[in-house]
Amino acid sequence: MRVFNFSAGPATMPLEVLERAQSELLDRGGSGMSVMEMSHRSPEFVAIAADAERRLRELLSVPDDYAVLFLQGGATGQFAAVPLNLTAPGARTAYLNTGSWSKKAIGEARRFTDVQVLADEKDSNYASVPAQGSFEVPQDAGYLHYTLNETIGGVEFPYVPDAGEVPLVTDASSTILSRPLDVGRFGVVYAGAQKNLGPSGIVVVLVRRDLLGRARPDVPSVLDWTAMAEADSMLNTPPTLAWYLVGLVLEWVQEQGGVEAMARRNQAKADLLYGAIDASDFYRNPVEPAARSWMNVPFLVPDPALEKPFVAQAAEAGLSGLAGHRSVGGMRASIYNAMPLEGVQALVDFMTEFERKNG
Amino acid sequence: MRVFNFSAGPATMPLEVLERAQSELLDRGGSGMSVMEMSHRSPEFVAIAADAERRLRELLSVPDDYAVLFLQGGATGQFAAVPLNLTAPGARTAYLNTGSWSKKAIGEARRFTDVQVLADEKDSNYASVPAQGSFEVPQDAGYLHYTLNETIGGVEFPYVPDAGEVPLVTDASSTILSRPLDVGRFGVVYAGAQKNLGPSGIVVVLVRRDLLGRARPDVPSVLDWTAMAEADSMLNTPPTLAWYLVGLVLEWVQEQGGVEAMARRNQAKADLLYGAIDASDFYRNPVEPAARSWMNVPFLVPDPALEKPFVAQAAEAGLSGLAGHRSVGGMRASIYNAMPLEGVQALVDFMTEFERKNG
Repeated sequence: MRVFNFSAGPATMPLEVLERAQSELLDRGGSGMSVMEMSHRSPEFVAIAADAERRLRELLSVPDDYAVLFLQGGATGQFAAVPLNLTAPGARTAYLNTGSWSKKAIGEARRFTDVQVLADEKDSNYASVPAQGSFEVPQDAGYLHYTLNETIGGVEFPYVPDAGEVPLVTDASSTILSRPLDVGRFGVVYAGAQKNLGPSGIVVVLVRRDLLGRARPDVPSVLDWTAMAEADSMLNTPPTLAWYLVGLVLEWVQEQGGVEAMARRNQAKADLLYGAIDASDFYRNPVEPAARSWMNVPFLVPDPALEKPFVAQAAEAGLSGLAGHRSVGGMRASIYNAMPLEGVQALVDFMTEFERKNG
Repeated sequence: MRVFNFSAGPATMPLEVLERAQSELLDRGGSGMSVMEMSHRSPEFVAIAADAERRLRELLSVPDDYAVLFLQGGATGQFAAVPLNLTAPGARTAYLNTGSWSKKAIGEARRFTDVQVLADEKDSNYASVPAQGSFEVPQDAGYLHYTLNETIGGVEFPYVPDAGEVPLVTDASSTILSRPLDVGRFGVVYAGAQKNLGPSGIVVVLVRRDLLGRARPDVPSVLDWTAMAEADSMLNTPPTLAWYLVGLVLEWVQEQGGVEAMARRNQAKADLLYGAIDASDFYRNPVEPAARSWMNVPFLVPDPALEKPFVAQAAEAGLSGLAGHRSVGGMRASIYNAMPLEGVQALVDFMTEFERKNG
């Protein structure tokens, strides 16, 4: 029996994608081999790679003056790649701190640059985002970085910050493809695949081309956007199997109607789950409503002693991965593109029943 | 029809591994989800990860005082990680140059250290390795690095260099698991997976633990061996699907009888192919016999105009991936662990027939 998997990433994949991958795992397209056995230089694989890039460009209307890279090392690798590619040693950079992933990005950037945190949501216990216009971006900063969606805190920016002439950089790992994104407003958008794009082991980077050519001389080649852009992300052997799976997911999103259709579906899922939480005196979501994530929904029960039974009984009911992040506890439901409305409905039904028994 | 795939990497996988991965792609072990959908923190995946490490330790008799890491970024990432983890800026390091991959490793290391090339095989046109004892290792070098097997040139070290007290570091991407390796003689052994270990997108690093703790303060976290060793290679989300597939390949190697059994089989395959080449006046392998690779066999025909027909007609006969690397031309047969003797026999039969028609 296939479970509904609410894990934050690696996360549930579209069943159709898994079935297709399974059906051609021994012989992709009559090649007589698995896609993971193909040379990355073969015409077959080069076509698979280019097809994935084309679909991503179509889905997000990526402007032509952006390079699209498929790299290794995840978003954490990009935490270092961003300062290494955009600034000189000791340069000033600007960050917004909205929670756990912001802090990790900031911690890595401090090793390479003079980080200025323009806004820190600690007063809200990281349950909100800074108000629009509440911070000023120093115009000598190499870039402004923010975390579009905090996977652990369940906080998502409802607006795009204004950075003036300073390049705007965002970690869009959880948000990408879940709703429209105006790529043209950013200098760099990066996203680990393991939420809305595919399996772990591959990260997508969109870079405005005028920002290439600024890398430090000692950036490791595998993190060098300029060298990777020149090599079509094949400066070294790319993660071919993951790249192929991302392509299948992108094709699936197109078949569903694209990012606008995903946004309608995701909003309906989020409304259903937040609505059930808010209508209850038993469950509670701590995030300011305007900043609530469509993708990651943390929630609490009145008595922490009920958390383990909740997670265990939910798992028995075929609802997996509902424990909150080990750093914060509580529960969390991640409801990415591949989670169907039926999964969220099943969760809400279970929550109602659990409340009836324990409320 | 499944072809015999002679690609240099990504490369052919054991059919049994592909069939197993296919059979459980939608539901791994009754979990109700694909392995690629599992949280890397879940007990199921943590067990998969630990199982792969255990099997690798068993197969190579890895001493207990070595950390085993599963990282992203391939061997090319390790070209930077080696100097960044072992030396201070500007430190002296020592390299042997036996061909294309040595040169890439040296090029990357020059960005971080003062590289001294102790031996360079250019006089042999990179068709050999330096004679044992022909170079002296400066005892103030941070390490001595060499490329155990040159995938493009088809040159493989038949001996382990003596570096004295200097840590010995090797890129074992093609050799690993193809024959016994005395890990205890090395400070660091690293190997991209896409030859003998699994799909691309994951690299294995074996580090003697006394070499941890030397990383530069500004090494990107995803390349930081010490931090990764402390986090069981899960400082960030690892490439879970690739890690799982490596585990299946390791299990398969154990079922075949381990590295000694693989070595017997690989020697038989290499003997068959080199024997056919040497017995012919038509084909030619340029490598000095003592340094011939068991894994990558480059060969030439008398007239370069016959190369394209050779590769095309071989592909029609179900023998794929036989073009030499684009930098050197000619032909190349990569005959990793997963290539059965029947595949090499089919290649030899084809070569005989091709020579008969064109010789």
